Amino acid sequence: MSGAKGGKVEIRAARPGDAGLILALIQELAEYERLRHECVATESEIAASLFASAPRTFCEIAEVDGQAVGFALWFYNFSTFKARHGIYLEDLYVRPQFRGQGAGKALLKHLAARAMHEGCARFEWWVLDWNTSSIRLYEALGARAMEEWTVFRLDGEALARLAEL
Amino acid sequence: MSGAKGGKVEIRAARPGDAGLILALIQELAEYERLRHECVATESEIAASLFASAPRTFCEIAEVDGQAVGFALWFYNFSTFKARHGIYLEDLYVRPQFRGQGAGKALLKHLAARAMHEGCARFEWWVLDWNTSSIRLYEALGARAMEEWTVFRLDGEALARLAEL
Repeated sequence: MSGAKGGKVEIRAARPGDAGLILALIQELAEYERLRHECVATESEIAASLFASAPRTFCEIAEVDGQAVGFALWFYNFSTFKARHGIYLEDLYVRPQFRGQGAGKALLKHLAARAMHEGCARFEWWVLDWNTSSIRLYEALGARAMEEWTVFRLDGEALARLAEL
Repeated sequence: MSGAKGGKVEIRAARPGDAGLILALIQELAEYERLRHECVATESEIAASLFASAPRTFCEIAEVDGQAVGFALWFYNFSTFKARHGIYLEDLYVRPQFRGQGAGKALLKHLAARAMHEGCARFEWWVLDWNTSSIRLYEALGARAMEEWTVFRLDGEALARLAEL
């Protein structure tokens, strides 16, 4: 597939009617990250989270010629040292047949501009270590790897056990 | 200092009058993390973020015999694969003279219980790689290091540059 080479990438906020599209994109991303088995989200759950009356999670869609080519899903984090919010990018995904047209960069630029506009201290995300093509893009855009930090996660039975200690 | 050995650790939500205390605890944490130079937060900024009408950031105080011994500052993150919110712990700190009395564990248990109660998918945080005493506690509580992920950060001039691309 050639995608829509040459078309201009447009970024728009997701709307309630996009829940099915967003779920499909999330599932494609899970496949790409080799984590499809972890992806149990449903369309109604996505709609409930993103389009609540006071949502805590937000989504932008990248389009070329009116066709969805990717998305960015994000929320606000917080830096205590700066006492300012930041933007945390939970997911960034561009469909394989539409890569190389700047959609990923356009989504990142859009969120960077929002961060600046809102006085955010930072714009952050995680990346899987083997995803070298993404890492190259991030570094080219000036992002730096916070190598000295490790993410810890508690979920499933371990989370339930600590809650009951 | 002996602290208040033997006293029971109580966890309570931070109140507007706590902003000065919370700033002092954040500054102590920055000192401990060897990042004091990055800590530019002010009391009024802390108050504005934590005690807004619809805050996005939350704080719990740990007390022993009515004396503040530590704090946890957190916000909601989101898992697209689960389509559920999680709790992200931005800062956890116990004053050195009060360590070893279970205040850190009590703060973690409190947030784990909240995560379970609210149907959150996960409870996550980052830790500095050299902070082995904390890492030992986290692992003992069942948390696992997500070694395959690296945190990327864009801030300062690099953030402004991407916003203007």
